[in-house]
Amino acid sequence: MRSRLTSIFRQKSTSQFLTVGLTGGLIAGYLFSKHKPIVHAESKTSIIIGERKPALPTFSMTEVAKHTTKENGYWLAYKDGVYDVSSFVENHPGGKQILKTAGKALEACWKVFTIHQIDHVYEILEEYRIGNLPPGEREANAKAQEEVLDLFQYDPERINANENFFIRSERPYNAETKPSILVSSFITPVENFYVRNHMHVPFVNINEYKLEIGNEKSAYSLSYDDLKDKYQSYTITSAIQCSGNRRSAMNNEEQGTVQGTPWYVGAIGNGTWTGVKLRDVLESFGFDKEGKHVQFIGLDCDTSQRCYGASIPIEKALSDDVLIAYKMNDEVLTTDHGYPLRIVVPGTVGARSVKWVNRIVVSDKESDSHWQKADYKVLPSSIKQPQQVDYDREPALQEFNVQSAICYPASSEDGNKVKILSIKPNDEDIKNQKLTIKGYAVSGGGRQIQNVQISIDHGKTWFQTELEQLAQPYMGAYAWTLWTYRIPLNDLPSKPFDVMCRAMDTHANSQPDTPLGIWNIRGVMNNSWHKITLQIDQNFPKSKNQNRTD
Amino acid sequence: MRSRLTSIFRQKSTSQFLTVGLTGGLIAGYLFSKHKPIVHAESKTSIIIGERKPALPTFSMTEVAKHTTKENGYWLAYKDGVYDVSSFVENHPGGKQILKTAGKALEACWKVFTIHQIDHVYEILEEYRIGNLPPGEREANAKAQEEVLDLFQYDPERINANENFFIRSERPYNAETKPSILVSSFITPVENFYVRNHMHVPFVNINEYKLEIGNEKSAYSLSYDDLKDKYQSYTITSAIQCSGNRRSAMNNEEQGTVQGTPWYVGAIGNGTWTGVKLRDVLESFGFDKEGKHVQFIGLDCDTSQRCYGASIPIEKALSDDVLIAYKMNDEVLTTDHGYPLRIVVPGTVGARSVKWVNRIVVSDKESDSHWQKADYKVLPSSIKQPQQVDYDREPALQEFNVQSAICYPASSEDGNKVKILSIKPNDEDIKNQKLTIKGYAVSGGGRQIQNVQISIDHGKTWFQTELEQLAQPYMGAYAWTLWTYRIPLNDLPSKPFDVMCRAMDTHANSQPDTPLGIWNIRGVMNNSWHKITLQIDQNFPKSKNQNRTD
Repeated sequence: MRSRLTSIFRQKSTSQFLTVGLTGGLIAGYLFSKHKPIVHAESKTSIIIGERKPALPTFSMTEVAKHTTKENGYWLAYKDGVYDVSSFVENHPGGKQILKTAGKALEACWKVFTIHQIDHVYEILEEYRIGNLPPGEREANAKAQEEVLDLFQYDPERINANENFFIRSERPYNAETKPSILVSSFITPVENFYVRNHMHVPFVNINEYKLEIGNEKSAYSLSYDDLKDKYQSYTITSAIQCSGNRRSAMNNEEQGTVQGTPWYVGAIGNGTWTGVKLRDVLESFGFDKEGKHVQFIGLDCDTSQRCYGASIPIEKALSDDVLIAYKMNDEVLTTDHGYPLRIVVPGTVGARSVKWVNRIVVSDKESDSHWQKADYKVLPSSIKQPQQVDYDREPALQEFNVQSAICYPASSEDGNKVKILSIKPNDEDIKNQKLTIKGYAVSGGGRQIQNVQISIDHGKTWFQTELEQLAQPYMGAYAWTLWTYRIPLNDLPSKPFDVMCRAMDTHANSQPDTPLGIWNIRGVMNNSWHKITLQIDQNFPKSKNQNRTD
Repeated sequence: MRSRLTSIFRQKSTSQFLTVGLTGGLIAGYLFSKHKPIVHAESKTSIIIGERKPALPTFSMTEVAKHTTKENGYWLAYKDGVYDVSSFVENHPGGKQILKTAGKALEACWKVFTIHQIDHVYEILEEYRIGNLPPGEREANAKAQEEVLDLFQYDPERINANENFFIRSERPYNAETKPSILVSSFITPVENFYVRNHMHVPFVNINEYKLEIGNEKSAYSLSYDDLKDKYQSYTITSAIQCSGNRRSAMNNEEQGTVQGTPWYVGAIGNGTWTGVKLRDVLESFGFDKEGKHVQFIGLDCDTSQRCYGASIPIEKALSDDVLIAYKMNDEVLTTDHGYPLRIVVPGTVGARSVKWVNRIVVSDKESDSHWQKADYKVLPSSIKQPQQVDYDREPALQEFNVQSAICYPASSEDGNKVKILSIKPNDEDIKNQKLTIKGYAVSGGGRQIQNVQISIDHGKTWFQTELEQLAQPYMGAYAWTLWTYRIPLNDLPSKPFDVMCRAMDTHANSQPDTPLGIWNIRGVMNNSWHKITLQIDQNFPKSKNQNRTD
């Protein structure tokens, strides 16, 4: 039990309350209480749906409950609204999970999976509106939601998370690092590292925990200590990035709004990862001779035992660089980052770095999980509704593309909402008569960043930024690059102006000017030039003692 | 001698005159005649330089001849002009070759290296104008040029080359394939394959030819037959692309004109290559244990024995895919394509696939050739004159980026000069009521093309094209992709309209919208969306029997 508690304890170390030496029993009792308080407010939407529409027919919950099959269609209710989502089922970003709500009211599900509480999900649902509930049934449904099982009882407390993160959803927990925090250190501290959970955080009894390694014919298992003791350990520095990072900037008037968590620039972090090589483990059991893919299955499973899963090509799995990691930044993994073991696939979209890994399977097939088969794919731009997709035609994302973003100056407000950032240069900038701009850049597949350039005239002229990067092997540049440029204050317009950045990797891959050529309905892999709009405070440079407001 | 003649003979096989069974002696006598006729016209420029400028001082050739050192400066003459090119020497795209003309008239050199006879070279030279020659000296210089050694005496005859190629320079020979020919077959026939020579084609006596393999300490050699007999042969299908392909489209009004051969879309071809693995050869001599780079040195050397050279990282050299090739499309290499042996580095810019390879050196250092150290690099966009560059800071190009181009419909006129292409749909298109658009796409490093999309509304909406591609291994997709889309004729505007294409590889790399973010003074790696402007013939669809004009 010690290891688990150590891990949880470490993760909680920002809390004064928890660092004063409580006994294991007390901590466990507190942490695993079913009714621990949720600190953060729920996500909010600006759209109101489910209100009564007098022009539509009325269907009772009894009628709704009859529609739970492909033949009868899938109906559900939300507030006063009745919906027929039959034609949406195949395209639900969360897969067939949606079927569990068929014939029922959505309130209970959305109370748990708060990820749905965003504008575009509301908009999609209302498209499928077919009628109203009779008076009184809405209230009955609202009461029922209180009784739902809290799948998220083992999610850790995340104290003061709003200071470091923009929280995109509480359940599952999705939180991105605020931009100015991202560039404040080359290694992103664990407590600042973005979290992208697909379901709840699973409970792990480390004494019972086993990692299973197998193929279609046979399987072996390793305990946590076996894995650490029997294989050589390695540490690599690698960024991990969600394939939806910068999704919100893919929306545009010409092509429309994409679907998914509206990440700004912070669904990325740069950490050190310590663990054993996946290759060594596969070789030790003779599983390196056959198979085309290596699948990873997590412990984060829903009530029907559908678990998070993903796979990578065998060539990558047998490369030098894929780890089964037990430490992040030299400390035991926290529960939010995959305790006790997670996969780290450097240079590849975060979705393949499976957390809480439970099983590793060498196979001729890719993972058949929803997240491998029907999500995390770049669909053609012509697809405006996921309904239209033959998912099997489109390859699963593996390596990510070349990316960069401006992170400083930045607002502490949600970057998606800041139209013009009004800034007062700080003391150092006033002294240097230069405005400091900072950001990150990274490319996939171990390709190093060659340069990052910024422009304040929409790309006509570019300034070469200074790079902070590690010396890394050829095709092994997995750590990110931080960059800095200082624009002479005299060169800055007094009116609002755009700052844009774009990176190029050493393989001549670069970022597209706009999202136009890469737009896809799921909003993944947006690496168009990042742009922020700045307005220099009018009193500058007279007010030399004022600090920058962010 | 048989092998060489066979090779040369094959290359000439399009000539009726040469296929009727002349004796070896006759052929040799004809081919190696110093004064064989040059079939094609010299390149032309629209700019006139070297005319007398009365406001400038007069310097005699005697005075010019004193300026041949760093201390005294480097002067030269052209027509009536005198030039001080001291500050240009370091930035000459052809390296220190320029020093040979110091103190002399340029006419003789440029008569041989006709690559200089393009507008932007003329413009650069005239920037360095300092004076005039005295009357009469221009004529004396013109006469002297007739006596220059013809370095190009072993270049093959290239009969009717204008039918298949846009010839960018005769000496060295640089010719790109016409676009509609490029997409007429998945494998580009040898006689249609673009040629990018850096100097003359070297003479090879195959009985004396040896390939040297070594490092700083020791070296071994292999004859042509040794190489073919002692190692297993492999055949791969791979595109080879010049890093300057599509250079001309990088020019834009905001950022200026780039320097180098103004390739349109045809400095690329897709061939099969048969040879032995570089890795096998290195391993057989024990040269696979040390070193960071593998250098290749060609037989194409100038009179001071400066030879073409390049290098690749050891990791790539020891990969599965780099060949020492002796066949192209299942036939012995032609002299223009590197007879007797050339390197083929798939997925990497053509400059590293050294032709006429003579020496292979494993080293801790990159090749110190001009083409590795000071050319074929993506310089920062802020560099407007190569003078400003610290070349050592910029990495040598290796893998190329994701690329695509529209090749059909196309004009047989130089694509750089066609502003609006007027077309009459062909019979098949009229029958289908669709306009056929075709092109190619390719990405570097063995990354497969995932999709190619075209747009006729500047990227707002995109159509998914049909792809013709090989099934290839993960990270081993070196062959190009051909693509086709048929636009319903009813969807086409009657006014001129732009068609644009862009590709994405399976690693989510895509092409930038414009050259703005990738502009570099040497004009390499332009992979911005390719655009052509079409005008449908007004008489269509009445004149159903007319053929498309191209």
